[in-house]
Amino acid sequence: MAIVRVTRRLHFAAAHRLGRADWDAARNAAVFGQCANPNWHGHNYELDVTVAGPVDPETGFVFDLKRLRELVEAEVIADVDHANLNLDVPWFSGVNPTTENLVVAIWRRIAAVLPAEVQLVRLQLWETPRNYVEYTGDQA
Amino acid sequence: MAIVRVTRRLHFAAAHRLGRADWDAARNAAVFGQCANPNWHGHNYELDVTVAGPVDPETGFVFDLKRLRELVEAEVIADVDHANLNLDVPWFSGVNPTTENLVVAIWRRIAAVLPAEVQLVRLQLWETPRNYVEYTGDQA
Amino acid sequence: MAIVRVTRRLHFAAAHRLGRADWDAARNAAVFGQCANPNWHGHNYELDVTVAGPVDPETGFVFDLKRLRELVEAEVIADVDHANLNLDVPWFSGVNPTTENLVVAIWRRIAAVLPAEVQLVRLQLWETPRNYVEYTGDQA
Amino acid sequence: MAIVRVTRRLHFAAAHRLGRADWDAARNAAVFGQCANPNWHGHNYELDVTVAGPVDPETGFVFDLKRLRELVEAEVIADVDHANLNLDVPWFSGVNPTTENLVVAIWRRIAAVLPAEVQLVRLQLWETPRNYVEYTGDQA
Amino acid sequence: MAIVRVTRRLHFAAAHRLGRADWDAARNAAVFGQCANPNWHGHNYELDVTVAGPVDPETGFVFDLKRLRELVEAEVIADVDHANLNLDVPWFSGVNPTTENLVVAIWRRIAAVLPAEVQLVRLQLWETPRNYVEYTGDQA
Amino acid sequence: MAIVRVTRRLHFAAAHRLGRADWDAARNAAVFGQCANPNWHGHNYELDVTVAGPVDPETGFVFDLKRLRELVEAEVIADVDHANLNLDVPWFSGVNPTTENLVVAIWRRIAAVLPAEVQLVRLQLWETPRNYVEYTGDQA
Repeated sequence: MAIVRVTRRLHFAAAHRLGRADWDAARNAAVFGQCANPNWHGHNYELDVTVAGPVDPETGFVFDLKRLRELVEAEVIADVDHANLNLDVPWFSGVNPTTENLVVAIWRRIAAVLPAEVQLVRLQLWETPRNYVEYTGDQA
Repeated sequence: MAIVRVTRRLHFAAAHRLGRADWDAARNAAVFGQCANPNWHGHNYELDVTVAGPVDPETGFVFDLKRLRELVEAEVIADVDHANLNLDVPWFSGVNPTTENLVVAIWRRIAAVLPAEVQLVRLQLWETPRNYVEYTGDQA
Repeated sequence: MAIVRVTRRLHFAAAHRLGRADWDAARNAAVFGQCANPNWHGHNYELDVTVAGPVDPETGFVFDLKRLRELVEAEVIADVDHANLNLDVPWFSGVNPTTENLVVAIWRRIAAVLPAEVQLVRLQLWETPRNYVEYTGDQA
Repeated sequence: MAIVRVTRRLHFAAAHRLGRADWDAARNAAVFGQCANPNWHGHNYELDVTVAGPVDPETGFVFDLKRLRELVEAEVIADVDHANLNLDVPWFSGVNPTTENLVVAIWRRIAAVLPAEVQLVRLQLWETPRNYVEYTGDQA
Repeated sequence: MAIVRVTRRLHFAAAHRLGRADWDAARNAAVFGQCANPNWHGHNYELDVTVAGPVDPETGFVFDLKRLRELVEAEVIADVDHANLNLDVPWFSGVNPTTENLVVAIWRRIAAVLPAEVQLVRLQLWETPRNYVEYTGDQA
Repeated sequence: MAIVRVTRRLHFAAAHRLGRADWDAARNAAVFGQCANPNWHGHNYELDVTVAGPVDPETGFVFDLKRLRELVEAEVIADVDHANLNLDVPWFSGVNPTTENLVVAIWRRIAAVLPAEVQLVRLQLWETPRNYVEYTGDQA
């Protein structure tokens, strides 16, 4: 059976600011530049969720994309869309909201609820049209 | 002489929340929905600035695009990029930061400094990849 | 009061074939080429709906985009998405489904239900990423 | 010698419907939802074909992109563009036309005719701007 | 009869440099900056050609897009694609190849051959993904 | 610690022509087609630079994107933007400027100066919106 990867793109808009609570404003500004603006700024994020698995010979699907969308909307988008990543997201509380930290946290949310028949193999998270991060579950 | 329109696209990322200070949270939520989240949310905005004028027979330009970019960066982008539209922008203070209100305020900023040789004819402001506003200076 | 244009992009996927019932297959093929394939073909359409009006000084909105989206989804998208434009759409029955004919029919649907406070000023309908039609209500 | 991957994007528009001939309409609708509409729907597909190989020191090419395009147009696009994936494609006959099944069938078509000097390493098939599948030849 | 606008996007890649033969290198560099590099640079141009007219009640077309594409390819693309705008294009000879001058020259080429049943109403010429010019035939 | 990939997209516009100095014009035209036009042509290139590494627990960054951008601008973009790839680039001199050869040369430039804390893992170089090459450092 062929193993195919299937990707669904989802969208959310959120505010954030980069910085550490245990650093003062000057140090946060030195390390994080404009992104440390205490009054927040924000982005339109695009999240590409990729799962892999054998093509089910009965349905021709690896995984129903509608079900994948609903699952990611319930576990991730409902919490982060039109929200503040520093203040509003219980499962991201106390974390400096870099795109790197965010993609790893989203990975854990999705991997925890994805049925065993399919495997989460890649998240691609765009912060702007010119930069994105990818995570494939690798640990050092 | 041919009259040509020239457009330059610029980018900024900002936080905001919709709402009126003289309404309570419940009324703001009823009218503005998710966009009234008190903890802010944000967007990547794209701003298309269009000027029109005769093509200068000497240079073949309507207006030097580099100069247009620098002018808009100085008058607009420097103030709104990585900023909070409700809190950080002196020339937008006390205004409910809808895309409509923002595009009109940006128009006034740019029109005030554009050299007489060229005319500001359209601003197109994208809040997300699926919605935008246009302003051409019309008043009712 | 400033008059601003507000645009919302919506998406649908549909099948169609070009041709006239009163022409035979050879003539339809001669005029419409590949698009007359009797077994149908299809597209992902993007529909940009633009309304114009004064910016409401109370809300800062020309028209609530969520309401605009819901209105177009109910009047248009619900009927054409994942449908056959030749067979499935009551208000487009018996019409050769060119993009030109479709944009005019969609205009009538939206204009008929749009509240008087706002004016439908432009529809832009993309059939592929390389061609689109625009309608602004003009009649010859 | 450096091993480089080279990708060419091609486009086609097609109609299809999801479902199995041995299931009744109700079961097809339950599993495939809107995609089982008996009257068909359709999409603009984008197909990214990626081949890999050493950079030829004489030409600086891995593989001539014009030749790659012509090969994919002859083997795939000529059969699926402005066609019905359920009815018109001899090498896809009797297959439920999910994007997963389609990408595997296209892989076989291209792999069978690609010269030995270059290797087919990835197909990416977009069904809409928000979902795509990838196949790299893996079998379970 | 409804008057509809129909747009077809075409692509070409070309080299150019900005400057005037009667100015020395220093003056050209002062006015045109990097774009005056004597060794040339180049762009992928996108050209959106828009025609308007009544929708033909017999065909449902304003103008056959295939015919429009072929006409623009013959009159414009064949001469400018993979060419040098300063050296290779007979109908653009001796003109400083700014986007403004180019769009006006292309307008004249297309307008001269377009059948009377349809009207050329707008050209949009993208030089990069962040800047474009528009021409609608206006003269000062 | 999670290993994450971080990508920054950069842009440049350049002229080039394909061909070998030791081949005559007829042979270059036969092998490279339009791309061998002696008067040059050009493109808008997009370069996606991907680095990988553990997420720094102190900053939440794999690598500061601003620093990555500045590094690539200094080592690559400053030399190739608004330049002629055949004539103007010291570190690409005498190389047939195919996209394949260019991506490998750019890899060497970036890899040579990237700090040890992060690893260059992929370059993606778009020559047009419909074709790109990828290099991941592999050698045959």
